[in-house]
Amino acid sequence: MQRISASELAQRRDRLREHAPEGFVLFTPDAIRYFTDFWFLSNERPIAYVELDGDEPFVFVPGFEVERTQAETSFARIESYPEYPGIEHPMHVLARLVGKRERIGVDNDGYPGILGYAGPSLSEVSGATVALLGDAIESLLRIKSPAEIELIRESGRWCAHAHRLLQEFTRVGVTEAEASLRASSESTLAMLESGEYGQLGSADGVKAGYRGQIGVRSAWAHAIGHDIEFAAGDLLVSETGAPVWGYNAELERGMVIGEPSDRVKWMFEHVVAAQQVAFDAFGPGITCADVDGAVMRYFEQHDLLPYWRQHTGHGVGLRNHEAPFLDVGDHTLVEPGMVFTIEPGVYDSQVGGLRHSDTVVVTEDGVEILTDYPRNLESLTIPV
Amino acid sequence: MQRISASELAQRRDRLREHAPEGFVLFTPDAIRYFTDFWFLSNERPIAYVELDGDEPFVFVPGFEVERTQAETSFARIESYPEYPGIEHPMHVLARLVGKRERIGVDNDGYPGILGYAGPSLSEVSGATVALLGDAIESLLRIKSPAEIELIRESGRWCAHAHRLLQEFTRVGVTEAEASLRASSESTLAMLESGEYGQLGSADGVKAGYRGQIGVRSAWAHAIGHDIEFAAGDLLVSETGAPVWGYNAELERGMVIGEPSDRVKWMFEHVVAAQQVAFDAFGPGITCADVDGAVMRYFEQHDLLPYWRQHTGHGVGLRNHEAPFLDVGDHTLVEPGMVFTIEPGVYDSQVGGLRHSDTVVVTEDGVEILTDYPRNLESLTIPV
Repeated sequence: MQRISASELAQRRDRLREHAPEGFVLFTPDAIRYFTDFWFLSNERPIAYVELDGDEPFVFVPGFEVERTQAETSFARIESYPEYPGIEHPMHVLARLVGKRERIGVDNDGYPGILGYAGPSLSEVSGATVALLGDAIESLLRIKSPAEIELIRESGRWCAHAHRLLQEFTRVGVTEAEASLRASSESTLAMLESGEYGQLGSADGVKAGYRGQIGVRSAWAHAIGHDIEFAAGDLLVSETGAPVWGYNAELERGMVIGEPSDRVKWMFEHVVAAQQVAFDAFGPGITCADVDGAVMRYFEQHDLLPYWRQHTGHGVGLRNHEAPFLDVGDHTLVEPGMVFTIEPGVYDSQVGGLRHSDTVVVTEDGVEILTDYPRNLESLTIPV
Repeated sequence: MQRISASELAQRRDRLREHAPEGFVLFTPDAIRYFTDFWFLSNERPIAYVELDGDEPFVFVPGFEVERTQAETSFARIESYPEYPGIEHPMHVLARLVGKRERIGVDNDGYPGILGYAGPSLSEVSGATVALLGDAIESLLRIKSPAEIELIRESGRWCAHAHRLLQEFTRVGVTEAEASLRASSESTLAMLESGEYGQLGSADGVKAGYRGQIGVRSAWAHAIGHDIEFAAGDLLVSETGAPVWGYNAELERGMVIGEPSDRVKWMFEHVVAAQQVAFDAFGPGITCADVDGAVMRYFEQHDLLPYWRQHTGHGVGLRNHEAPFLDVGDHTLVEPGMVFTIEPGVYDSQVGGLRHSDTVVVTEDGVEILTDYPRNLESLTIPV
């Protein structure tokens, strides 16, 4: 898989310059990755990307990162400081490099307090007025390019691969941890064997599991993983993730272990139908609130409101959740290139919960589904 | 393992009240966990803990978390909002619950921008003046109680367990991913079999790997994991982590595959000696800068400065890195109960790097080492 091209990254930075004609300094790891595709472990030691009028752009890293940055990136200029906090605080080193400026665009006024970091703001050390670019950056993140959509689609393929394994390893008497660790490990190794998907390592591969949504606990939309053993009759809500050069699709399925009861069949049908209502709701001129509103109407019409727990979905891309949200309170206009999860669920505290989550990209007249995995009850029944 | 007791949590909140007599609102997941031991998946939906003068304390969660919070915590009062952003923004719901106040202590003036969240600050919606408690919270985090130290010690035991497996699975021709995933999975399952260590699930177990510090890349103190195959002669720097009720020790070892060269033996001896210099430097009245200064003097005296890359260590506990830092620029007085990593490394761009990281707790007259794993070259040579 191709990572995002240098020209597309340059285009992103040009768009940001429209909001910051005098240039900008980026401090948050997500923004640096989005605008430069620079990968690093972030901790108390500040890293920044600086692109200011009349000066050669540069990346600012702790000294020990200089050799790696030279070897693995195409930054023409790399500036550094010895250590954090150091004899001279890194923000003062940065201020000297930035020089005297009237106004600087920033994602954040200084390095955020990651893992114990503390220090002065950029405006304090540089004397410049800072213009906050957070909203502009969020609006750029919202619309995905064809290259980004391909990365998310590929992520969705690996989610499906991992989900097939998860389903295979989920059996009565096995614990979530056993099924999850095995499906995650095998999928990560398969991904590594088949090509380049980003700096994959021990902590950065495929994840597949249930986050504790097993049995009646599946009614808790965000249960937390415990070491639960699968039992006949359990409802399950899965989750999978497989970053491809940092981009994520989301694929989740409601499932049942053994012959489903009539009640479970009834819940399952509504999950599938409510998701279809959301898929069908997209079209020119619609807002996020309209999509969620259509799903809410479905719940209302079928007396399902007691079983409603969460909005229809969220943006997804470099982050697992991002704005805008498919929520009755989010009036963002839906535009082609936006990527959302669609995941209305039906939750009954006495029985459990069911939810399918698929990832879609908005097209001119609807959506295209980027995750391909069965949604019907037969395919999602685990044999006992 | 016992998690932190209710009385110790109450004591922590009492200490925070000394800095915020009118009470406080906590928005950051780390602070909520530290003061209440409440575990949750954090995302765009705000979660807060509120303890204000004259009012019953409460936790503020999205509606779908209410049942789980009732079942799994001992909060006497749980308040909620339907969804984010919702018809009414959660911050307005919170403002109504908080009521009219002159002054409120906060860790952050509103919910931080997690995963796409946006919203007004607490001072805007409540009209109160907020007093920032960040520094007070950091100072409380720094000194660990006996119960916290036991959790970190237990984490260190599981790090050692995982490291033994990692070392066993690291062989010429195997990739980092294979060795790492296998050691991590087996250790996580062993931990689950032997007791309760927190809400362990698919994404929350033991990690053991090399973050790409393999061969000459081991000279990059924070290389990023790639799918590298181990080869004879490689230098390695490992990493392990095993949260126990959220608490972490850190254990890392410099290793070599096959017969070490004289140059590697020389580097290795200095790594062990520099770490001993740091262990020995602790004592009454010493500062963080003094400890790092002692190590720097060792580097200087042995003409090792060209091979120096990082400060001696960092605080560790609920977060993998936290203040204070064992750095020449951090003049914090070292106090009994502080927990640090001790990890001076020797890095040669032409050969590779070596670093041992151990976790220590400061005592009245020195340190006690909480991670027990061999440090000598013979034990850390992988057979070919």
